[in-house]
Amino acid sequence: MAETDFWKGHGTENDFVLLPGDAEVTPERVRALCDRRAGIGGDGVIRAVGDGSHWFMDYYNADGSLSEMCGNGIRVFALHLREEHHATFPLEIGTRDGIKVLSESELGFSADMGSPRVVGTSTISVGDRTWPAVHVDMGNPHAVVFVDDLDDAGPLHDPPVHDPADYPDGVNVEFVVRRGPGHVAMRVHERGSGETRSCGTGACAVMVAAARADGAAYPATYRVDVPGGTLAVTLDGSLDQDGRVHLDGPAVIVARGTTAL
Amino acid sequence: MAETDFWKGHGTENDFVLLPGDAEVTPERVRALCDRRAGIGGDGVIRAVGDGSHWFMDYYNADGSLSEMCGNGIRVFALHLREEHHATFPLEIGTRDGIKVLSESELGFSADMGSPRVVGTSTISVGDRTWPAVHVDMGNPHAVVFVDDLDDAGPLHDPPVHDPADYPDGVNVEFVVRRGPGHVAMRVHERGSGETRSCGTGACAVMVAAARADGAAYPATYRVDVPGGTLAVTLDGSLDQDGRVHLDGPAVIVARGTTAL
Repeated sequence: MAETDFWKGHGTENDFVLLPGDAEVTPERVRALCDRRAGIGGDGVIRAVGDGSHWFMDYYNADGSLSEMCGNGIRVFALHLREEHHATFPLEIGTRDGIKVLSESELGFSADMGSPRVVGTSTISVGDRTWPAVHVDMGNPHAVVFVDDLDDAGPLHDPPVHDPADYPDGVNVEFVVRRGPGHVAMRVHERGSGETRSCGTGACAVMVAAARADGAAYPATYRVDVPGGTLAVTLDGSLDQDGRVHLDGPAVIVARGTTAL
Repeated sequence: MAETDFWKGHGTENDFVLLPGDAEVTPERVRALCDRRAGIGGDGVIRAVGDGSHWFMDYYNADGSLSEMCGNGIRVFALHLREEHHATFPLEIGTRDGIKVLSESELGFSADMGSPRVVGTSTISVGDRTWPAVHVDMGNPHAVVFVDDLDDAGPLHDPPVHDPADYPDGVNVEFVVRRGPGHVAMRVHERGSGETRSCGTGACAVMVAAARADGAAYPATYRVDVPGGTLAVTLDGSLDQDGRVHLDGPAVIVARGTTAL
């Protein structure tokens, strides 16, 4: 395969290889690019499809499968569009999950992540410990578990145990501690990926569960610390009135070049 | 810091970030470049110090510490010198472990790794299993363990247990199975790094232990399969007569570009 331009970047240490719109993308090529030893390394590949004014985020998971959206990836994509294509904001970006509106923010970029849904409660177990969990649907399923200490869940080599009646397709599990008013910190175990440095929809689910427990007045903004950095999540209205979640965080491009992969 | 040219490559999936000779290298910068999420990602950084005819491999571990030599890294360095600096072979490359002679080979490049020393025997344990081990010194300490099946050692989340009387500074442990005459396969647990995809000195230690057990006639060449690919190791004379080990294997450059890290 010919040499192709690439960029590598990350948002709170969720990292991506970006390719130009004319790059040929196959599952094999995505796996080769994302391989952390034999390739460039990344959690996914983003191909920048567009004509200079309209843009589509063609996103692939590291295993080569298609993905609808990535809350941390879309900020890195927005930075790429601003740096390389002179994009201006607010900007509508097409994804397989529909149009997302991106704005510039103090932390970097903010993305409208849509309306969350609190489904109910469930339980999560690790080893011989069991906690109550809040079931939040962000388009994908989350179990938010409030703990006294982030170490309570242990090393998380194995997936936390969930109730398959509540989560027939598996679940992303967030363990959360409170750091102060409107300020939480979390760890996340993503289904299929294990413990990761950050999860955009996970941070949103955590904020929704915390704000609901706090009886917050909307719009409300929470700081959510993840292992890979800090995010700010805003819920712009009550859940009953289809309030929308906005995920705000940093984006960094660390390298650009060419690859024959 | 200003934008710097970089290359990324690997040898049997031991991967490295290469920098030009005028790049400023600090432990912080090495850690930033080798970070697999927030950086480019690598097992180490190699700075190409030279004047076009004499070259020195300025090698750093991912944690920013200095290292004397890297058997897989020096092949990637040799490929870089051939591609970018028109180096011709055989080529003498300076390292903190002295001058190494690199030759072109069918697999890629071959490096003279010096004379091994078989120190004696020891034991290695994982969980409730204990095996005899051959203590081979390749400049660094190795325990070579012959097993019936590479899965016998389990997942290796924790370091195998060694005898501190034999290995006061810790040890790299290789588990080895025979695949046929002159052909073995191995897994390796490197002290300080955990299980890795390849270890150049480990492959050499394994070949020395296998050839000795086989009563091989010298020069002898063994194929050594590692998780990240295939190496060929030659012992050019008997251990009593200071026979030297030559490590032959592939080298790949996967990307080149610029970074602000």
